[in-house]
Amino acid sequence: MKIICEKENLIKGLNNVLKVSSSKTTMPILQGILLQTNNNELKLTTYDLEIGIETIIQCEISEQGAIVVDSRMFSEIIKKLPDSQIRIELLENNLLEIECLDSLYKLSTMNPEEFPELPKIDIEKSISISDFKLKNMIKKTIFAISLDETKPIFTGCLLEVLKEKVNLVAIDGFRMAFTSDMIVNNCEPFKAVIPGKTLGEINKILAEEGIEVKIGVAKNQILFEMDNCKVISRLLEGEFINYENVIPKTRETRIKVKTQEIITVLERASLVSFSMEEKSKKFPTKFHIEVGKLTLTCSGSLGNSKEEMYLETEGKELEIGFNHKYLLDALKACEDEEVYIDFATNIAPCLIKPIENETYLFMVLPVRL
Amino acid sequence: MKIICEKENLIKGLNNVLKVSSSKTTMPILQGILLQTNNNELKLTTYDLEIGIETIIQCEISEQGAIVVDSRMFSEIIKKLPDSQIRIELLENNLLEIECLDSLYKLSTMNPEEFPELPKIDIEKSISISDFKLKNMIKKTIFAISLDETKPIFTGCLLEVLKEKVNLVAIDGFRMAFTSDMIVNNCEPFKAVIPGKTLGEINKILAEEGIEVKIGVAKNQILFEMDNCKVISRLLEGEFINYENVIPKTRETRIKVKTQEIITVLERASLVSFSMEEKSKKFPTKFHIEVGKLTLTCSGSLGNSKEEMYLETEGKELEIGFNHKYLLDALKACEDEEVYIDFATNIAPCLIKPIENETYLFMVLPVRL
Repeated sequence: MKIICEKENLIKGLNNVLKVSSSKTTMPILQGILLQTNNNELKLTTYDLEIGIETIIQCEISEQGAIVVDSRMFSEIIKKLPDSQIRIELLENNLLEIECLDSLYKLSTMNPEEFPELPKIDIEKSISISDFKLKNMIKKTIFAISLDETKPIFTGCLLEVLKEKVNLVAIDGFRMAFTSDMIVNNCEPFKAVIPGKTLGEINKILAEEGIEVKIGVAKNQILFEMDNCKVISRLLEGEFINYENVIPKTRETRIKVKTQEIITVLERASLVSFSMEEKSKKFPTKFHIEVGKLTLTCSGSLGNSKEEMYLETEGKELEIGFNHKYLLDALKACEDEEVYIDFATNIAPCLIKPIENETYLFMVLPVRL
Repeated sequence: MKIICEKENLIKGLNNVLKVSSSKTTMPILQGILLQTNNNELKLTTYDLEIGIETIIQCEISEQGAIVVDSRMFSEIIKKLPDSQIRIELLENNLLEIECLDSLYKLSTMNPEEFPELPKIDIEKSISISDFKLKNMIKKTIFAISLDETKPIFTGCLLEVLKEKVNLVAIDGFRMAFTSDMIVNNCEPFKAVIPGKTLGEINKILAEEGIEVKIGVAKNQILFEMDNCKVISRLLEGEFINYENVIPKTRETRIKVKTQEIITVLERASLVSFSMEEKSKKFPTKFHIEVGKLTLTCSGSLGNSKEEMYLETEGKELEIGFNHKYLLDALKACEDEEVYIDFATNIAPCLIKPIENETYLFMVLPVRL
């Protein structure tokens, strides 16, 4: 293998694939990055047996070949080299030589035949969505994905593709995040549950350049194709909850809040929420809604707080308690200056939603006071 | 106690004293901040039995008093309040009430009489130095202070006050950092060894506003006075090494390097220095100096590196090895674009110093190759 490439190109490729390669693995080969030439292209691959990423960069190749090299070491060296052409050559003693101006590095390598092959995937159904839309939808749901491995299905997001719409839904037992956007779908409707980790990686790779992302699914795999980068991941198996059934259908009380203002006030009121005795325990933050006024109160080990906000209200007076963290996660994912928060009773979840449209809906369960 | 003050003033005061109050202490009162009024001034005090900080802010006081309140909780609430006037009042039930616009907080308090008194200090000798100079001197030495508690004297910096000069010196067994500046001293020369932690706190407090800092010492205490802020700390006891004796007097080889360039090259060459077997072990980086050329090489578990730099050299050819971290710490503390590195033999420490003057001198011991 003998390659000459621009540092800039190589860095771009590395930035895509390095999202995955894990240093925690027990298989040393998976700490490596597979470099493979093909005519005038260099393919970089990383794989952790759950998610695989491939990316292709253009370079000048005078000798074809393939090799695996430690991904952290290789990328750190490339990143710190001067901005210039880099020559990469596999020597006879299996050391990978990297040369750039007055810098010369030789790295030990691993056998490319030991690198596990990425699963072959026969796409059955697919859609195309802009990277802006996809990144925005991920941002609006990823915070509500469960980290609790005992219910594996909730460690993923439901991707629901309908005729003209795509929905993304996350639920963790305390809250739900739903987001929806328009697409043109030429296939049959389909569903898939994407692991949270995969969405996290995709989110990091999406650079919001205005490109189209093709999302294709097979039986238990999903493929994301962007420009010169492909991400393949397993899907989660099992039945996702019928999320529409858990959304309260009635509304007894509504407030209209300035998103940034309520975030600030809620963060402040909740400062006293902690317990000196149990570090993990949080005392709830209480909402008291009267005509034209919301009062937030909280009592913790070191003191108590009371915050008053004057705002538009509708419907019945209400007292209801929340874990402030769940509300804040949802409020911070809202992009609108103002949102509605709707309540049914003080034991039913509240709904946070935009005033103008129905592109997202966040649901948070209350805490008994 | 009943106070009205501007948020901005209170924040400034809190930022000074909060450098110290420790959450690790076993005495709960030391997690507190002592608030004391005196006419139209509010004094804030924190103390961890080693370092005490007092700062004074102006405010409107309608009822004098003193109280101790949890410093983290109090400061987080104050920081998050709207930018406006804050009313602070000690209620009859010993709760501290904080009110600002529509926000109302009540915090539990501690008895101010239980707050340990800061040591009284009878200044014997003192100097005055600009905050710019002092901060710069701390920056140039603090990195070389030893963290090894078995030799307590080296966990501090030697402050050496001469007739017209002040020196600051840190040594940790592998390297030394020396810095010097001109002052007007009307006292007798004196020496004191300041704990590294104290210098770290002072460094954080110094805002480089062009103010004078008065440094006074007593038998085993040191006092730093800046504007409305005082820091008092114990001194380290014992004899500091006679650092002048350990500086090599001969020079066989000299190189003149561009500081930023050698930092970049050394960081890159040392990327391969780590050991897969022992995580803490670092393979040395080898310097080979010939006429007009410096070659850096390093070999680690995953590969090796070679970097060539063309530069001005003087004297004998030399091969010498270093722990790159120690060299980098020193080079990063240099403010000059170019510096000299002087060598005697390959078992003697190298000296890093400015080309134009003698305001600092860094010494790093080599590693046997």
